[in-house]
Amino acid sequence: MSYYAPNYPPAGYGAGGYGITGGPPPVPGADPALWARFSSVDTNRNGAITATELQSALANSDWSPFDIDTVKLLMNFFDHDRDGMIGFEEFQRLSRYIKDWQNVFRHFDRDRSGTIDGSELRSALSRFGYNLNPRLLQLVQRKYATTPDYRGIVPTGISFDRFVRACVVVKQLTETFQRLDVDNDGWIQIDYDQFMSTVLSLP
Amino acid sequence: MSYYAPNYPPAGYGAGGYGITGGPPPVPGADPALWARFSSVDTNRNGAITATELQSALANSDWSPFDIDTVKLLMNFFDHDRDGMIGFEEFQRLSRYIKDWQNVFRHFDRDRSGTIDGSELRSALSRFGYNLNPRLLQLVQRKYATTPDYRGIVPTGISFDRFVRACVVVKQLTETFQRLDVDNDGWIQIDYDQFMSTVLSLP
Repeated sequence: MSYYAPNYPPAGYGAGGYGITGGPPPVPGADPALWARFSSVDTNRNGAITATELQSALANSDWSPFDIDTVKLLMNFFDHDRDGMIGFEEFQRLSRYIKDWQNVFRHFDRDRSGTIDGSELRSALSRFGYNLNPRLLQLVQRKYATTPDYRGIVPTGISFDRFVRACVVVKQLTETFQRLDVDNDGWIQIDYDQFMSTVLSLP
Repeated sequence: MSYYAPNYPPAGYGAGGYGITGGPPPVPGADPALWARFSSVDTNRNGAITATELQSALANSDWSPFDIDTVKLLMNFFDHDRDGMIGFEEFQRLSRYIKDWQNVFRHFDRDRSGTIDGSELRSALSRFGYNLNPRLLQLVQRKYATTPDYRGIVPTGISFDRFVRACVVVKQLTETFQRLDVDNDGWIQIDYDQFMSTVLSLP
């Protein structure tokens, strides 16, 4: 199961080459396959990839593209110098992050359906320390499923990229709540500005 | 400027036909062009369209597809019988809703760029009664722009479908805050469950 979309053109893959830019990786010890992948994504060959190039390189197991919101989440996490581009070193860290999430996803996708259903979501969030009640779990499931849910029909599962976003959002919201709940009584006092900025800062 | 993607195959368009299902609209007085459009979107010809079929029928002015989250918002608004399908009558209401938003979008897209920039967003939200401070406006702009913003580079604008979602989210959040702010002092007390469910219910 790969989360990378097939490359069009499939430059440098399988044939043992180094991709369309040619040559060995610029960083000593770097994975040549990762360099080949980076080179093939960097279609204008300027040594860095944009959000658009990154989106075209990422796909779920059913080849559906990552949502732009997940791509923006990744750019915000890994484009440390905020130049709008991911260099090869940033790409290496980003690839490791995705690989780690792939392992998490595979672990919790018990029925190997390629998506996370309700009970798989409960297991995953619970393992991460978020024991949401059934109603909140259903809201997460509804919000991040790829289609709306219907009366009497089991909603579709959550694709890989949306699962990553769901987990990041639950983490970020819970941490914000805990930070504001200074006396730890399960209630917070919040003004309109803080309330809005908390939500609008979510990926 | 059309927000409908070209139809592949372009059944019934331009040639004066009624689309691949043939025949006049089933509802007396219905717009034949809208019926033709509906018929061409309903690829399996069962008289109703799914979220996936709807997504393939909708596009921004640059032909980029609507985000799945906006498609889900539309399905949730217009699929009243929650059967996961949009029938022709629901499609008529949905088309009117999109047309109204198109007019709003065109009105506020003063520079005719096809996207909403920071000052256009401020005008639009202000006209709707939401006078957000500059920091909140910037957060809305960042969250709904199609790419991350970069140091020193003006962020990209907000596409039509994401603009609709941004406005619905600001409206929904503000209304929730006002409902909870019973003594109208600009502060609310909220527990973890309410806090999470408010955010997770947003489109």
